[in-house]
Amino acid sequence: MPQHNQDRREQGDRYATLTPDELAAVDAQWRAANYLSAGQVYLLANPLLTEPLEPRHIKPRLLGHWGTSPGLNLIHAHLNRVIRARDLDTIAVWGPGHGGPAVIANSWLDGSYSETYPDITRDAAGMGRLFKQFSFPGGVPSHVAPETPGSIHEGGELGYSLAHAYGAAFDNPDLLVACVVGDGEAETGPLAASWHANKFLDPRHDGAVLPILHLNGYKIANPAVLARLPESELDDLLRGYGHHPLHVSGDKPEVVHQELAWALDTALERIAAVQHAARHEGATRRPRWPVIVLRTPKGWTGPAEVDGLPVEGTWRSHQIPLKAARENPEHLRELERWLRSYRPEELFDADGRPTADVLAQLPAGQRRLGGNPHANGGLLLRSLPTPPVEDRAVPVDTPGTTAHEPTEALGEVLERLMEATAERRDFRLVGPDETASNRLQAVYRATGKAWEAETLPVDENLARGGRVMEVLSEHLCQGWLEGYLLTGRHGLFSSYEAFVHIVDSMANQHIKWLRTSRRLPWRRPTASLNYLLTSHVWRQDHNGFSHQDPGFVDHVLNKSPEVVRVYLPPDTNTLLAVAEHVLASRDYVNVVVAGKQPCFDWLSLPHARAHCARGAGIWEWAGSEADNREPDVVLACAGDVPTQETLAAADLLHRHLPGLAVRVVNVVDIARLMPADQHPHGLSDRDYDALFTRDRPVIFAYHGYPWLIHRLTYRRAHHDDLHVRGYMEEGTTTTPFDMVVRNNLDRYRLVMDVIDRVPGLAVRAAHVRQHMVDTRYRHGRWIREYGTDLPEVADWKWGARG
Amino acid sequence: MPQHNQDRREQGDRYATLTPDELAAVDAQWRAANYLSAGQVYLLANPLLTEPLEPRHIKPRLLGHWGTSPGLNLIHAHLNRVIRARDLDTIAVWGPGHGGPAVIANSWLDGSYSETYPDITRDAAGMGRLFKQFSFPGGVPSHVAPETPGSIHEGGELGYSLAHAYGAAFDNPDLLVACVVGDGEAETGPLAASWHANKFLDPRHDGAVLPILHLNGYKIANPAVLARLPESELDDLLRGYGHHPLHVSGDKPEVVHQELAWALDTALERIAAVQHAARHEGATRRPRWPVIVLRTPKGWTGPAEVDGLPVEGTWRSHQIPLKAARENPEHLRELERWLRSYRPEELFDADGRPTADVLAQLPAGQRRLGGNPHANGGLLLRSLPTPPVEDRAVPVDTPGTTAHEPTEALGEVLERLMEATAERRDFRLVGPDETASNRLQAVYRATGKAWEAETLPVDENLARGGRVMEVLSEHLCQGWLEGYLLTGRHGLFSSYEAFVHIVDSMANQHIKWLRTSRRLPWRRPTASLNYLLTSHVWRQDHNGFSHQDPGFVDHVLNKSPEVVRVYLPPDTNTLLAVAEHVLASRDYVNVVVAGKQPCFDWLSLPHARAHCARGAGIWEWAGSEADNREPDVVLACAGDVPTQETLAAADLLHRHLPGLAVRVVNVVDIARLMPADQHPHGLSDRDYDALFTRDRPVIFAYHGYPWLIHRLTYRRAHHDDLHVRGYMEEGTTTTPFDMVVRNNLDRYRLVMDVIDRVPGLAVRAAHVRQHMVDTRYRHGRWIREYGTDLPEVADWKWGARG
Repeated sequence: MPQHNQDRREQGDRYATLTPDELAAVDAQWRAANYLSAGQVYLLANPLLTEPLEPRHIKPRLLGHWGTSPGLNLIHAHLNRVIRARDLDTIAVWGPGHGGPAVIANSWLDGSYSETYPDITRDAAGMGRLFKQFSFPGGVPSHVAPETPGSIHEGGELGYSLAHAYGAAFDNPDLLVACVVGDGEAETGPLAASWHANKFLDPRHDGAVLPILHLNGYKIANPAVLARLPESELDDLLRGYGHHPLHVSGDKPEVVHQELAWALDTALERIAAVQHAARHEGATRRPRWPVIVLRTPKGWTGPAEVDGLPVEGTWRSHQIPLKAARENPEHLRELERWLRSYRPEELFDADGRPTADVLAQLPAGQRRLGGNPHANGGLLLRSLPTPPVEDRAVPVDTPGTTAHEPTEALGEVLERLMEATAERRDFRLVGPDETASNRLQAVYRATGKAWEAETLPVDENLARGGRVMEVLSEHLCQGWLEGYLLTGRHGLFSSYEAFVHIVDSMANQHIKWLRTSRRLPWRRPTASLNYLLTSHVWRQDHNGFSHQDPGFVDHVLNKSPEVVRVYLPPDTNTLLAVAEHVLASRDYVNVVVAGKQPCFDWLSLPHARAHCARGAGIWEWAGSEADNREPDVVLACAGDVPTQETLAAADLLHRHLPGLAVRVVNVVDIARLMPADQHPHGLSDRDYDALFTRDRPVIFAYHGYPWLIHRLTYRRAHHDDLHVRGYMEEGTTTTPFDMVVRNNLDRYRLVMDVIDRVPGLAVRAAHVRQHMVDTRYRHGRWIREYGTDLPEVADWKWGARG
Repeated sequence: MPQHNQDRREQGDRYATLTPDELAAVDAQWRAANYLSAGQVYLLANPLLTEPLEPRHIKPRLLGHWGTSPGLNLIHAHLNRVIRARDLDTIAVWGPGHGGPAVIANSWLDGSYSETYPDITRDAAGMGRLFKQFSFPGGVPSHVAPETPGSIHEGGELGYSLAHAYGAAFDNPDLLVACVVGDGEAETGPLAASWHANKFLDPRHDGAVLPILHLNGYKIANPAVLARLPESELDDLLRGYGHHPLHVSGDKPEVVHQELAWALDTALERIAAVQHAARHEGATRRPRWPVIVLRTPKGWTGPAEVDGLPVEGTWRSHQIPLKAARENPEHLRELERWLRSYRPEELFDADGRPTADVLAQLPAGQRRLGGNPHANGGLLLRSLPTPPVEDRAVPVDTPGTTAHEPTEALGEVLERLMEATAERRDFRLVGPDETASNRLQAVYRATGKAWEAETLPVDENLARGGRVMEVLSEHLCQGWLEGYLLTGRHGLFSSYEAFVHIVDSMANQHIKWLRTSRRLPWRRPTASLNYLLTSHVWRQDHNGFSHQDPGFVDHVLNKSPEVVRVYLPPDTNTLLAVAEHVLASRDYVNVVVAGKQPCFDWLSLPHARAHCARGAGIWEWAGSEADNREPDVVLACAGDVPTQETLAAADLLHRHLPGLAVRVVNVVDIARLMPADQHPHGLSDRDYDALFTRDRPVIFAYHGYPWLIHRLTYRRAHHDDLHVRGYMEEGTTTTPFDMVVRNNLDRYRLVMDVIDRVPGLAVRAAHVRQHMVDTRYRHGRWIREYGTDLPEVADWKWGARG
């Protein structure tokens, strides 16, 4: 017995936790699930092996991952026992999600699969369809996926299981989230960081996470690092993570059953004790939560050797142990031997229904892991009581006269929202140590920052049970929020714009999850994942080039248009209008780009709401069009800084070329630019032309990479005469205005663009153009000398123009 | 004294390691660097405080990060001592790279800064310029950056310091890499995963990494998790990571100096003992490398309080402790008091030169951290002895008759390359557990997979000192390779295409590093970072939707065109031709997308080389053009699967519409499509038109998101008649051909596109179009029934056409 367990020995006998009946029941469940897992991988027909196995019963393409499945089945069977015995409200997160067959098998066994997919009945016919559909065209994916009942976690890209588990547990005090962490996944950065999430879990307001580190020893082709540590070193590591480890290892089923049952009982008693102490005895010290370390062979119970090479217990069992079962009679015989080793005749009756032995300890109804409503969070979702934003809006009499920090006003809205959800506890704000840096600090008046580790008198706004989550890991922020949303709650992720790329791949996976979920009628809509990207490319005064990247918008716009929405509100009131919209939305990924620096107020709240509802519109007050004719030029803009430069350019044009008819168009909802058949928000060509004209030059000042606008508009009329300015990777530590000059997005350059593009102006306005050139040159000399922006730029206001 | 250090007490006296002279020298260095750090943040003039401080001496915009600087200065001074005392070859990686002023200050002190930037002389005038340039327009960034002598690590995005340090240490047996890890950075996933990199460091062939975990307690606005663990828990954690921790903490300089000196001496002796045992005594057991834990106040020696609030030792010292030094006389007085507290008159002579006390223990020449050539790796770079690829090329008599796995052939080239560098040890292959999965396994014949943890008899290809690096963390792969390349070596990163998005943000930062380095004449070119993206979107048979994302190409093409290159070789020989090119290149990020599944051979090696050198070209043999007229249609393609479908479509057109003049254009170098003024590889309009015509429809089958092609070509002639097919996020677990059908990239759809787009064909070829529609319908029925591709698709060969 590992010495690390000695201190817990008194709590139970690790070798005799289960009665013989209990042992038989978990073993029967395990064997049944193993049989069903292998069957999904291999069998096209003859699911109950009622006749000798023949090549025609074998799928023509053998796809899937066997290796992790028996371990997942073992854990599932044991979770079933304790759920039933203790009437636990439990969901499971399966980190080694390649083991899709295992989770599907167990859902079929407990009946939740057939309830979700009525054609996959819990009988021989249904078993046949269950087997055939797996990794089959038109069927179900090989991983745990949205299609899998009971799952909130895609089993494709690895690393996020534990973060998802914590996200599910936050504000769910009665929930147990069992989280199986694979030893391959454990090598990833996000998973490695996730172990410290226990410093953010409050035993009073949050549920429990029980990590089960499954060491089956191998990844695709290599041993796993954690599996090759001496047990004492691994024990140190887990204690260093703040956990109390319980080690179980072996390859004898009857021994492992007893030990795992003991470990689960011990862990659950410890969890109950922790929660009782925190909830009823006033304990405030950070507890040591249990973790189970389960060491069993990869591909356990599968073929020990194939073609003379060891398979069970090695990486060779990762995918398909018997690759040639259809072509090679020896493989076929070995497969039949393997499948019959589970004694299917004891597990399923003649009609293919699970026998009473298998069903003996299964939980029922919503207690089933495949049937728990937390794993279909839309069932539990309540509309967010978003407070009216009216009293946080800024008054705007004359546009461009006053300035506010947009995110600061949003912070006050979030403060109200935190107050309104103080009892319900179904809204969280996550961000990497930047809530105040992003000017959302008003929220602290309503709730603190979750923090269970040591506090010192100098600390501010830390609180056990706080619902602002700050940790210097975008991965944790994203993972927590995903887990929180998919279990039926709401949230917002605020990030520095550049560093949200850290979670590009997680965003991909979440968008894919939502796209698939939307097509599954039984998956109920969940709250959207809302990004607030601030501290953006144009205002990185303290940082510079490394912090300048507006490309997340490009990244998400590659993904499914039914899920992705992008908004660039140009001022405070438009940010508030966008915020009320996205917080009420469902099943989207909303990307909101907004500044935290003082920004001119352009629109009153009613105008802002109307403008955001349209998504793109003409700002008549900013233009100089005559009523009855098309303008000479359209100045379009999207984003706060480009809008400011565009308005300043319109001002310059008004002064220097008063006869020019200028139209100003502002775009908030960037997908408006897309063709209507490519995005649900896309404008019809007629509506697009009504904004941008069919034949006038358009100078478009865009917040991000300029070619994005071309990628969205290339099919539009007169696209040849659309000229876009934006960020071109020209950055450094410099002033705000120097940044726009370096990227040719400045007001003077925009005026030059107008003169260059409007027919006839080149000669007529040559002197104006030269004045612009001279001013830019003067800017260059000024900034090198004084390090600040030109006074005429710093002092400019739209509202003060003549 | 922390109990964890008791076991090492006998090795030295932690309270009296330094002689009084040594103590005075490190303290003088520290004070000087602190003075210079604060000076950079605040002073526009009066650098030596020769007159009382006045508002006009203060910068108009106070930007930068003071909080971390004194800790970095302390470590730098102590590293200087041991480097000099032990004549160590050392570079340092500064994880808290926001402390740019600290690293710059020390480089100025040791003279390396003035050697690099001769106008920043080591005297009063130079000090004045040093101060002014910091975070000033046209000056230097506030972070450690390419501009900083001695650095290989950008201090912007956090999390990669330790991975960079290991990368630098690999195959540099005589190098010590000191790596300062901030407690903020330590919360990130990549850093958390990096601690386990010691399982991949071979004490015989590799140098040493000495992590120095600097706990200054706070991030931007919050305490740091590791800083708030009980010391015993942190000690468990670091032991669990396989390290031997040495703890130093305090806020009394004279005590901390002694303890840190003791810890450094102890760590270096331990490192020397480990290396001696491995290199001379045959030790093979994984050693416990030392780690130093340094706990000192954030903003140490800065203002204790400002405006009545504590600053030193809190998060309030993160950036600018005295924010209003120019406007508020009290802040100005406090700043002067603070600066004079370092006693600059003892540290700099009347001419502003460092005094003998400060210079007493500085290393000289290449031993200086600011002057070590490993940190300007191009100085050490040797050309790679890439073997001729001739004998790995596949013979091609008739195109499209035979098929090979492109990456398998590349694996054989890499095998030769590993052999050729067996002594030099300056090439490594990294990848997340996928070398064999990506079919590069031939490389194992020449070298093993680096692995220092336990091995079992069943393991294959593991080797201490192996130069294939496999770990299930794209972050570690990328970080290791970056560190390896920037210290003057070569490498290749092979990744599943979808999951390379995990390192989107790291790729951003590396591209930014290279873009900046290229503009610094003193930074010598380093080997390119080469990505091989395989297991791509079209062949995810075992996985499905979660593994399908071709968007990394879009991501990198947003970045600086002088750095980014993208290649899509369509077959084995073109992959080999691209590989020889990218392996010899410098200062690029090369993205190569290539399949691992059997793929038709189209071009012989000579043709492949010529085609890749052109980057895009007409495949006359595949078309049906008459000599003297333009074709009726251009079928363009990029990527292996699109090329196959395009050739199959050309075959169908040849059979069904033999009179149609078809041109086939294949694009390998995707930037060829860009305008010549936007990318160095961009084709002139004339050359573009010679390929794509000025007025014929182009049907472009592209590997990735189709709109990328539009974004690259929107300025080209006749862009309205360019029709692109590609991946549209329609994926699942299905067959290869079903994938292309679902995304309208299949041969039948391409033929339909031709019929729809070529004037006059719609009616004349209506029957052919209907045949295509029927075949696609038949495909749908077939696949739902049998789960395999249509036999006529599976059996198709170009070489067999009539």
